[in-house]
Amino acid sequence: MTAHLLTIGDEILIGQIVDTNSAWMSRQLNLNGIAVVGKSSVGDTRQAIVAGIEHAATTAQIVIMTGGLGPTKDDVTKATLVEMFGCQLVFQQEVYDRIAAYFQKINRPLPVELIRSQAMLPDKAVVLPNKVGTASGMWFDLDGKVFVSLPGVPFEMEYLLTQEVLPRLKAQFASRPIVHRTLQTACEGESVIAKRIETFEDRLPGHIKLAYLPALGIVRLRLSGNWPGEVTPNSEADLNAELDAKKKELWALIPDLVFGEEEDSLQGVVGKILRQQGRQFGTAESCTGGYVAHLITLVPGSSDYFPGSVVSYSYEMKSKLLGVKASTLEIFGAVSAEAVAEMAEGARETLGVDVSLAISGIAGPGGGMPEKPVGTVWMAVSDGERTQVVKHLFGRDRAKNIQLTGVYALNMVRKFLLEETLVTT
Amino acid sequence: MTAHLLTIGDEILIGQIVDTNSAWMSRQLNLNGIAVVGKSSVGDTRQAIVAGIEHAATTAQIVIMTGGLGPTKDDVTKATLVEMFGCQLVFQQEVYDRIAAYFQKINRPLPVELIRSQAMLPDKAVVLPNKVGTASGMWFDLDGKVFVSLPGVPFEMEYLLTQEVLPRLKAQFASRPIVHRTLQTACEGESVIAKRIETFEDRLPGHIKLAYLPALGIVRLRLSGNWPGEVTPNSEADLNAELDAKKKELWALIPDLVFGEEEDSLQGVVGKILRQQGRQFGTAESCTGGYVAHLITLVPGSSDYFPGSVVSYSYEMKSKLLGVKASTLEIFGAVSAEAVAEMAEGARETLGVDVSLAISGIAGPGGGMPEKPVGTVWMAVSDGERTQVVKHLFGRDRAKNIQLTGVYALNMVRKFLLEETLVTT
Repeated sequence: MTAHLLTIGDEILIGQIVDTNSAWMSRQLNLNGIAVVGKSSVGDTRQAIVAGIEHAATTAQIVIMTGGLGPTKDDVTKATLVEMFGCQLVFQQEVYDRIAAYFQKINRPLPVELIRSQAMLPDKAVVLPNKVGTASGMWFDLDGKVFVSLPGVPFEMEYLLTQEVLPRLKAQFASRPIVHRTLQTACEGESVIAKRIETFEDRLPGHIKLAYLPALGIVRLRLSGNWPGEVTPNSEADLNAELDAKKKELWALIPDLVFGEEEDSLQGVVGKILRQQGRQFGTAESCTGGYVAHLITLVPGSSDYFPGSVVSYSYEMKSKLLGVKASTLEIFGAVSAEAVAEMAEGARETLGVDVSLAISGIAGPGGGMPEKPVGTVWMAVSDGERTQVVKHLFGRDRAKNIQLTGVYALNMVRKFLLEETLVTT
Repeated sequence: MTAHLLTIGDEILIGQIVDTNSAWMSRQLNLNGIAVVGKSSVGDTRQAIVAGIEHAATTAQIVIMTGGLGPTKDDVTKATLVEMFGCQLVFQQEVYDRIAAYFQKINRPLPVELIRSQAMLPDKAVVLPNKVGTASGMWFDLDGKVFVSLPGVPFEMEYLLTQEVLPRLKAQFASRPIVHRTLQTACEGESVIAKRIETFEDRLPGHIKLAYLPALGIVRLRLSGNWPGEVTPNSEADLNAELDAKKKELWALIPDLVFGEEEDSLQGVVGKILRQQGRQFGTAESCTGGYVAHLITLVPGSSDYFPGSVVSYSYEMKSKLLGVKASTLEIFGAVSAEAVAEMAEGARETLGVDVSLAISGIAGPGGGMPEKPVGTVWMAVSDGERTQVVKHLFGRDRAKNIQLTGVYALNMVRKFLLEETLVTT
């Protein structure tokens, strides 16, 4: 079973809004065994909508449209569907009554004309009742294809898709399950990972696909089973078992790179370990300026293991709040192994934590020196007994250097807590 | 001049990522006078890519593709283009050298085979050199249409679009000047702003458009002159003068809401004022966990006015590092006017700064109480003589509460420094 999503609206084409609707719909459809084989967006004109629907219908059995169903002049989806599918608009009393009741429920005066226009619906459409708004969904069964039109307001679309569209699709089409497994890796590039798992990838059966999803400092590896058109296992349980086994096999090939699975984040994983070990953690940050503390505290409940942080941007703060020796700063500079080690030690003391992370570097664009170019970042993790110090050389872009430092530092803390070897490059 | 954007990748179709690339590209193209008339997304198969390109070419003069250029097996865009456009893959030594230099720069061992494969490029393509990654962009001029293929990694795509694609498009197609002016507003909603500038908007001449570009806590107002299809002024100089006047007029209508213009950021504006006034600034953060310090230090050169920050997540840190009285925390709690005022005072002392910002709130999802629900945030700004304290009530989403607090707090600091009245809602 295949679907094409068509979003309608000028605001998408000029980039005024990011289309989050279609990502949400894709997840829901995939979870229900319906493969989304294409997506497209067109503007609010009849010609563009007709061309968009015609194209969509060539790619999939089901075309789901969103947007353009409002009562204003720039919303032309309904009129276009009526024309294209040769329908008549018919007044539907029960739709009128439902919208009127909706306005009463939210304590608004009745805009009678607007309600009348929203209650005029195409005779060839099954009306999908919208209980959370005024624009009805429409379902057309034409020449063996299904065309569905939904409002673009996210919660109205979500309501209609889950309550009306998915149950009908499952009833009408026998769906094949698609199952996904994701591993999260940090601090290694796509190409190096690909090299290390080449044999595994080559030996994957045809119905399992591997995708690399890279972000700054992080690559997600996603296994998708039962891709349409391929041979399928006997049952969904078989498929799940097969994917679990493949995921385990993949994990075992790169245990040093994998920090988590599915929707895990580095800060979430670090938090989980700290909680399990019953240890308190804090940071002393220079060039990241509080970014790592911000990541840590994005996790709900992080106050259980994170009492606080010191952002010591100036030499003075490094000395005053973290006890870094003036001689250390003078001789080695603030961006040095010696300085971050003292910062980490000082942070343990000042913040009263078991484990601390310290960061000092040159984020750029200014401040570089021949022996310490822009992108040089020192980081240290210490628990009082062990202190680990590492240097990285990132790039020239300030915001990216800060972000990358966040990933590398959190991963370093993770490995330190787990007493795993840190391989530095 | 019309363009169609084609994003390639299974991750988009299964909804694992939200396609932010195409919204960004749409904005850039529109700013440069190129209308985006359609967008579509297809999966990582040759058949789907070919169908997608063919469809895109029926809708626009320029087809810009992103994604599927990585060195891994699931990336098939290049092979598909070679086949579809009847090309030969040719080894390009200079591309090889650039990628090798890139790996050296980021201190990585050379994956020679992968670099070789990335240096094999179609003979009919103009290679767009990627200085921030390994996948080159490709530009095809075929039958009067332009086909451009870019990597999907956002910063690589952004680099290539601005540095290579837009200049070429502007050189190849005669584009009519479109001129933009932007005002940045904070802490007020789109509908309230629209109401206040209604008359101005109604009286705008046909060739000037006003767009509202909302983000969390911020609305950008963009005036675009000489929109395609409308009457145009005599010269570009005339148009510029007219837009300058309109921008001034608009600014004068909402001086309390505008914090900057064009690409200004709140942290950049705050930094500029601090520098002008020769004052040192620091933060004491609880619920934002270092986020505001992070924003401040995103600005290059911020060390000139920002010596540091204290993230005091726990009661103990609030007392120990900021001198908040135990009795204050006991009687009023950490989320109170009294506590943030003491935090601000303590931060001035501890950090040795002239002006300080303190924040304490309940970011959620847990921790809410009947009299202090999730989303309650107190903030204080102090220079030792004046102390301003404000309470806000944001929503239920943790990440969004932190972000909104950042906007409201920086805007409060800005108004405090300028001694402008702070109107609270």
